[in-house]
Amino acid sequence: MLKLYHRWGSTCSKRVRICLAEKGLEWEGRIMTAVEERENLEPWYIDLNPNGVVPTLEHDGRILIESCVILEYLDDVFPEVPLRPADPYDRAAMRIWLDKAEFVVHKNVNVLSHNRRHSSTASGVDKDAWLRNAEKYPKFEYRQERIRRFHEGVSAEQENFAEACLAELMDEMDATLSKSPWLAGDEYSLADISITPYIQRFEANELTRLVDWTVRPAVGEWWRRITARPSYEEGMRLDLAK
Amino acid sequence: MLKLYHRWGSTCSKRVRICLAEKGLEWEGRIMTAVEERENLEPWYIDLNPNGVVPTLEHDGRILIESCVILEYLDDVFPEVPLRPADPYDRAAMRIWLDKAEFVVHKNVNVLSHNRRHSSTASGVDKDAWLRNAEKYPKFEYRQERIRRFHEGVSAEQENFAEACLAELMDEMDATLSKSPWLAGDEYSLADISITPYIQRFEANELTRLVDWTVRPAVGEWWRRITARPSYEEGMRLDLAK
Repeated sequence: MLKLYHRWGSTCSKRVRICLAEKGLEWEGRIMTAVEERENLEPWYIDLNPNGVVPTLEHDGRILIESCVILEYLDDVFPEVPLRPADPYDRAAMRIWLDKAEFVVHKNVNVLSHNRRHSSTASGVDKDAWLRNAEKYPKFEYRQERIRRFHEGVSAEQENFAEACLAELMDEMDATLSKSPWLAGDEYSLADISITPYIQRFEANELTRLVDWTVRPAVGEWWRRITARPSYEEGMRLDLAK
Repeated sequence: MLKLYHRWGSTCSKRVRICLAEKGLEWEGRIMTAVEERENLEPWYIDLNPNGVVPTLEHDGRILIESCVILEYLDDVFPEVPLRPADPYDRAAMRIWLDKAEFVVHKNVNVLSHNRRHSSTASGVDKDAWLRNAEKYPKFEYRQERIRRFHEGVSAEQENFAEACLAELMDEMDATLSKSPWLAGDEYSLADISITPYIQRFEANELTRLVDWTVRPAVGEWWRRITARPSYEEGMRLDLAK
């Protein structure tokens, strides 16, 4: 049995849902509420996920965390619809994209989402409750950065830096997709899945320079193919992900 | 044929060399010089490795980069001495450690190594040459951080923050190694390899609080077993890695 602790609006949750949809797997969802009181910071959940973030996957009683690691786990355990290239060289390329998806894309989108949707003002959460939640994050660096953002905010300079990192990444994507139809070669893979939710987030955050496909036409063509896959609507559930 | 572009003193190169030693693979080395003129920033090398860092592995004419990705590649291609757990759940645990090894351990060790070994003063490199090298790094964030460190240095506050991140990571290691002999379960794996060079770097950087094994005895016991493996001496080559 597969049970996903998730939120509809969470980019990392979307990765896992897209993968589950591509593989045609049945799963049960447990929505983690996140307004004034964040369920993901309650002790019972931190016992499951020591980072206190979504998603967490429970599979026959075993607990998996870290969305990109969950993607490879699902492909290890349910290989019937393979989502990793068979060639070890392409598989290495896929893993480089998984790392970039997390440690370049997610990291910088998170910076750019603060003022637009995560801050107390943008999310409509009471300031005291917001800080109380920030202080509950169990991991030192993650917690300190949230507390720092509460007190100092995210500056225009920090936003510009994050956007420059993402623009460089999008240039790399465009160069790769000019040579092959998918990020890790001839077949759609976990690499494509890992980045999909963030392109939609660029759109939602109105980062217009990043989604101007006249500048990066190969990414635009890839994005047209990504959004046409049934797994896009099924995994993203944009109707629920306000 | 396996050809490794590397430096003896590079922590990421050491990971790959330890893996090659564990698997008993023959390889040819190409040392990348790095004093005033850094070969890793020359155009011919950046064509191989767009990040301009070591190591790079060439395998029968194909080019692999990113040391933790190279580790999985070597296990995909040369599975005779397996270095990944067979159980997908343990394999997921291994991948979480690979990510931590790169994005927590390496990242923070790099901060702590600046004043001790990488800065112009510590490395004995002429200041102009140092800055010229920093400006040649092809990736935006990496380059900007090096330029920033040149002008502003790494402060005591930044060092303390990095050391706190590493202390938390070592606590996690100790908790894990109190339950299983190796980081990803009952067998030595790529997870253990990915972190090994950094523990030695803690020692070399005299980060005494991180290597006080009375505080984290399970890590100390693991470290004793790691350093007793023939691959440690063969991969680390501390005699050459000044």
